[in-house]
Amino acid sequence: MMPPSPIRKLVPYAEAAKKRGTKVHHLNIGQPDIETPPTILDAVKNADIKVLAYSHSAGNESYRKKLVHYYKKAGIDISHEEIIITAGGSEAIVFGMMACLDSGDEIIVPEPYYANYKSFAMMAGVRIIPITATIENGFALPAIESFEKLITDKTRAILICNPNNPTGYLYSKEELEALEDICLRHGLFLFSDEAYREFCYEGTYTSAMQLKRIPEQVILMDTISKRYSACGARIGAFITHNKEVYAAALKLTQARLSPPGLAQILGEAAVDLPDDYFNEPKAAYQSRRDLIVQRLNQIPGVFCPTPGGAFYVIARLPIDDGDRFCQWLLESFSHKEQTVMLSPASGFYETPGLGKHEVRLAYVINNDDINAAMDCLEEALKIYPGKTN
Amino acid sequence: MMPPSPIRKLVPYAEAAKKRGTKVHHLNIGQPDIETPPTILDAVKNADIKVLAYSHSAGNESYRKKLVHYYKKAGIDISHEEIIITAGGSEAIVFGMMACLDSGDEIIVPEPYYANYKSFAMMAGVRIIPITATIENGFALPAIESFEKLITDKTRAILICNPNNPTGYLYSKEELEALEDICLRHGLFLFSDEAYREFCYEGTYTSAMQLKRIPEQVILMDTISKRYSACGARIGAFITHNKEVYAAALKLTQARLSPPGLAQILGEAAVDLPDDYFNEPKAAYQSRRDLIVQRLNQIPGVFCPTPGGAFYVIARLPIDDGDRFCQWLLESFSHKEQTVMLSPASGFYETPGLGKHEVRLAYVINNDDINAAMDCLEEALKIYPGKTN
Repeated sequence: MMPPSPIRKLVPYAEAAKKRGTKVHHLNIGQPDIETPPTILDAVKNADIKVLAYSHSAGNESYRKKLVHYYKKAGIDISHEEIIITAGGSEAIVFGMMACLDSGDEIIVPEPYYANYKSFAMMAGVRIIPITATIENGFALPAIESFEKLITDKTRAILICNPNNPTGYLYSKEELEALEDICLRHGLFLFSDEAYREFCYEGTYTSAMQLKRIPEQVILMDTISKRYSACGARIGAFITHNKEVYAAALKLTQARLSPPGLAQILGEAAVDLPDDYFNEPKAAYQSRRDLIVQRLNQIPGVFCPTPGGAFYVIARLPIDDGDRFCQWLLESFSHKEQTVMLSPASGFYETPGLGKHEVRLAYVINNDDINAAMDCLEEALKIYPGKTN
Repeated sequence: MMPPSPIRKLVPYAEAAKKRGTKVHHLNIGQPDIETPPTILDAVKNADIKVLAYSHSAGNESYRKKLVHYYKKAGIDISHEEIIITAGGSEAIVFGMMACLDSGDEIIVPEPYYANYKSFAMMAGVRIIPITATIENGFALPAIESFEKLITDKTRAILICNPNNPTGYLYSKEELEALEDICLRHGLFLFSDEAYREFCYEGTYTSAMQLKRIPEQVILMDTISKRYSACGARIGAFITHNKEVYAAALKLTQARLSPPGLAQILGEAAVDLPDDYFNEPKAAYQSRRDLIVQRLNQIPGVFCPTPGGAFYVIARLPIDDGDRFCQWLLESFSHKEQTVMLSPASGFYETPGLGKHEVRLAYVINNDDINAAMDCLEEALKIYPGKTN
């Protein structure tokens, strides 16, 4: 059975709270509030379309050729014949699992991890083997020896999200090279979901595609959803130097005929945005991160490491159970007619029992709202019946 | 391994022919030449979008509510909570297989069938069991007794495409009821791909959703691709009265977050097209069907039944091998600097050896081009070295 989404399962309680007149601050879902650049929407509006026909199954060649320049600027060298345009990052991940793994194969994923990976694995008939990253270490990559212990004759790949959803952790070059070592030694694929590449606030971003010793083993899964605040477009990319894997993925793309057509126009236009386009959203996210981490750590009993990227943090709260607490916030609490919606972190862990005292917060609302949301959380933790200290 | 697409595998030969200056009449792929209604493209152009956000995983509620009216006019009673908007009909079929079948389960499909069903079945880890329809019977539904013989304890569903791709056959009410009987008797799902609903030229169209005795067993897979010449939009629908199946499919939709956003606006606008919108494309297709069937049957040794719907015909040709012939047409033949691209029918059959003397033709080009293409075919069959009579 597919697990319920930890991000969406509390939606009915939020709707009920809103009906009672309570304002709900949404920190539960990674839907950015940043405006989609109007010029890329205009590109769709100005397109001269007579017949909205199937595109190439790998996506329009003109778009793929443009993307080569985007990736070059990001330090990633690829050709347009190594790119497949997908229906969001989601489809890229499914294609990766289906093209590289057989039913019953295993893929090691550091937990907590993006909950939908589990659904994709179920669709592909493969097993996720979790390796636990801890909040005490700021969710850094677990020691390589712990990876080695998990490798069996069924292991085919390691999947990372960098910068990470749900932890915000930005993997260092050294950590990437440690992964490269182990993939090289055991002949594993390295799947790298880099949806949040443009939002790194310190340290240096290293793409898995920059690892020089395993060019045939790296699969890059990407999306424009977060990069350009275009989640609804459903445009992503599957990228690999491995011709055999590319050919296998291409057959999967042919079955579904083509990626979304109108949104490919939008994606192509996005490559032409000025180089300084990311400055503004990145500065906004960084300021929010600084604020939310500061506010969280000021609340007695709360611990939140400072992550290097993406727009998520995971915080440990002095509570009995994150699921219960997040539901209580929506059902039984309000402060100045407001409350806050968080994602219980348990849903991001595979190992039962982990994440029970943690929540994920997506800082996709402005600083005033973050302050109001943190006021709510602070007050809530004073009176929550399941408080543990 | 995913099979190569019978529709696309000859593309390199077509490209080479074009480079030599030969005009290629494309009868190989169901990409309509009919214009996408400009008003539905305008709806996207006029949309006021600040943030192109994720939609509801099942698709925008406003669109689903509108679709209820479209289906009502088509004689199908459903509520918006029984509809999931999908990325094309392709995703609807994958969701059906994944939501209703377990790995290793079997699904009976009359052959020849839409080749991508096989890819979807491989993705879902299920087996297609073919039941052969014959050109002599115009590709009518095989006798129910032959279905019964194929049912095992693994059989979970029967999948039909109505009107049919690749045969154009329109199933009668009696045939649908025979399928209803067998699904009722054996507790099977009936998957009905009705992508070509609006293009029926005689007889009466019956939707599987109109079968009254198996409301919980019918899954309707639909798409706007052909209906509104909007193949590139990638908008389809998964429809069922079965709440359990709907819930299972909804979890699959949540994993991929949402269907294409811009194209949902287009789909919603399409419901508002005037009632007589279909008259023109339908008349165009019918006139092409009449012409192509007449021209084909006038060629010595060729047999082509007259199908009741869609925009495909399958013809039997006096040739040794359809794959060889279709490649030869592109590689070694031209008539007045023109040739024709067809799909070898073998790729639409599961049973090895079948369809060897048959080709599929999609009448998605105008009558003048159909005449020119048929002139080519007629001349080609006079000189093809592998001619059999």
